[in-house]
Amino acid sequence: VSARRPEDKSDLAVTPADVAGAAERLRGVAIHSPLVESETLSRRAGGRVLVKAEGLQSVGSFKIRGAYNLISQIPDATRGRGVVAFSSGNHAQAVAAVAARFDVPATIVMPHDAPKAKIEGTRSRGATIVFYDRVHDDREAIGRRLADESGATLVPPFDHPHIVAGQGTVGLEIADDCERLRLVPDLVLAPCSGGGLIAGIATSIKARWPDTTVIACEPEHYDDMARSLAAGRRVGNTDAPASICDALLANTPGALTFAINRALRTQAVAVPEHWVLTAMKAAMTDLKLVTEPSGAIALAAVLAGLIRLDGRTAIAVLSGANADERLLAEALAAPEPL
Amino acid sequence: VSARRPEDKSDLAVTPADVAGAAERLRGVAIHSPLVESETLSRRAGGRVLVKAEGLQSVGSFKIRGAYNLISQIPDATRGRGVVAFSSGNHAQAVAAVAARFDVPATIVMPHDAPKAKIEGTRSRGATIVFYDRVHDDREAIGRRLADESGATLVPPFDHPHIVAGQGTVGLEIADDCERLRLVPDLVLAPCSGGGLIAGIATSIKARWPDTTVIACEPEHYDDMARSLAAGRRVGNTDAPASICDALLANTPGALTFAINRALRTQAVAVPEHWVLTAMKAAMTDLKLVTEPSGAIALAAVLAGLIRLDGRTAIAVLSGANADERLLAEALAAPEPL
Repeated sequence: VSARRPEDKSDLAVTPADVAGAAERLRGVAIHSPLVESETLSRRAGGRVLVKAEGLQSVGSFKIRGAYNLISQIPDATRGRGVVAFSSGNHAQAVAAVAARFDVPATIVMPHDAPKAKIEGTRSRGATIVFYDRVHDDREAIGRRLADESGATLVPPFDHPHIVAGQGTVGLEIADDCERLRLVPDLVLAPCSGGGLIAGIATSIKARWPDTTVIACEPEHYDDMARSLAAGRRVGNTDAPASICDALLANTPGALTFAINRALRTQAVAVPEHWVLTAMKAAMTDLKLVTEPSGAIALAAVLAGLIRLDGRTAIAVLSGANADERLLAEALAAPEPL
Repeated sequence: VSARRPEDKSDLAVTPADVAGAAERLRGVAIHSPLVESETLSRRAGGRVLVKAEGLQSVGSFKIRGAYNLISQIPDATRGRGVVAFSSGNHAQAVAAVAARFDVPATIVMPHDAPKAKIEGTRSRGATIVFYDRVHDDREAIGRRLADESGATLVPPFDHPHIVAGQGTVGLEIADDCERLRLVPDLVLAPCSGGGLIAGIATSIKARWPDTTVIACEPEHYDDMARSLAAGRRVGNTDAPASICDALLANTPGALTFAINRALRTQAVAVPEHWVLTAMKAAMTDLKLVTEPSGAIALAAVLAGLIRLDGRTAIAVLSGANADERLLAEALAAPEPL
């Protein structure tokens, strides 16, 4: 453990100790996903690349970590009145699965154009789904109204200390596994929507290795975290076109997640979408892992050469794998980008 | 650890202690692959199913375990003269990777119709490939001649105690992970060709839980282990048609692997090939794991209903994932069998 630096603000809403507490709670709930590597992929990337296979969680994404860490801490009487969440589908399935585990009702506000796999995965876990329109509706307002009406607890997708601490266990496992392999990663990259995962990872990784660079990877046109970090204040996306990265479309970083990422000097890159299919294909053929588009964007950033490794070692988080079959077939058939 | 039973012959060529020794050697070489599960899949199977994701090894299969356990124990001077192996492709890549790690030459005897991914994976690791014809040539004789000529060490694919002990670490990890999850598996299933993996798994699993059933899964028409166990002596396959399970075509069990499987009461089933594509598809969509046909056959046995779970818990080893893209696309498009 390294010395604390002045910029590692001790007054941040989530501390490494909070992440350690979440890791305790998650024992037997989330798997300790492996770091997987492929010589072919590392050669192609120009440096050692290991991926953290979070799509292997039983809900198909890392979201089980934050959802369980929050819901398990709701007092029994309150939790009995149920939970409400708004989500494009991965947080949805995680909240539904955790609610089922505690045998409490879950209501999920989902966009009607969410991937079929995500809608079915949420419904099959017993949740009630309320659909909204991404363009015209305010999902957060719908979620709050449903929670107010029923007395259920709103489980936000990213901007809550328990959510960030839960997602931070991804970073803690990376740190522990790297130590076991006797390697210090130069870079840790993860997908970024509202910034909960990357804030949690930064909390864990920067506490262990202050000089390791943590990089938030966003789809082109949805780089609100990159622009917010550059501006020093939260800014939103404007006129963004449709994207296959359905899980990375949050309009602005969270207040809490932005504060953490700013304090811990998280970097950010915007990844052109055509590299995402390439990364999905490479994950399947070289790493033997299925990913969804959003889940593959950190690997896409490396393959696109947006991050030049120059012999350095990078950990890329594959955050989720809830893709429809049609899209997997499309990725397998994708031509190599120029 | 349970009491030793009379039928657990202490004079078997591989003991649980040998497997523990192999596990020590393999630290940092093989990953501790996760047990992955999906509610959808378990519901469909009628009992809890967890899979051991061995395709995530850097060589795409469990074969790194036995190959490293053997090659690392060859005296330095001898190992310097190189290694020779015959293999349809997974053992080939593993031996090539281990030889490269020790910086010694590797010559691999491979069938000319091996999957492209396996040939490329072997060549890219620096091995010299000698092709043979599955129908007309004796790959074992070619391998022995090459070894005799060069002074290289022959690394057999299954019938050697160090190979079996190495593969047995798959079973040891299953046992340790199950204990951590506080579950006792009723059944452990794994693909079977020459019987090295299943012998190693039986060695580990039966030492921990004598009442757990260990099941060797073979392709229909290649059920030499099933028929050998039934006959009480080693018998071969006859007039077997072509199969997509290219890694499971050994003609007879090994002498050593047969003795172990017989003594430890390994069971065996033959799986119709059309269920293999179904299992590959389920692995991709429900478990988010890519597998090759041979690697998916234990899961296929469960999905085909050859093993009725009736609420019991099964561990199915997904042993390898070196499949060509075309075949992955074919599996994704596979219709559900009746």
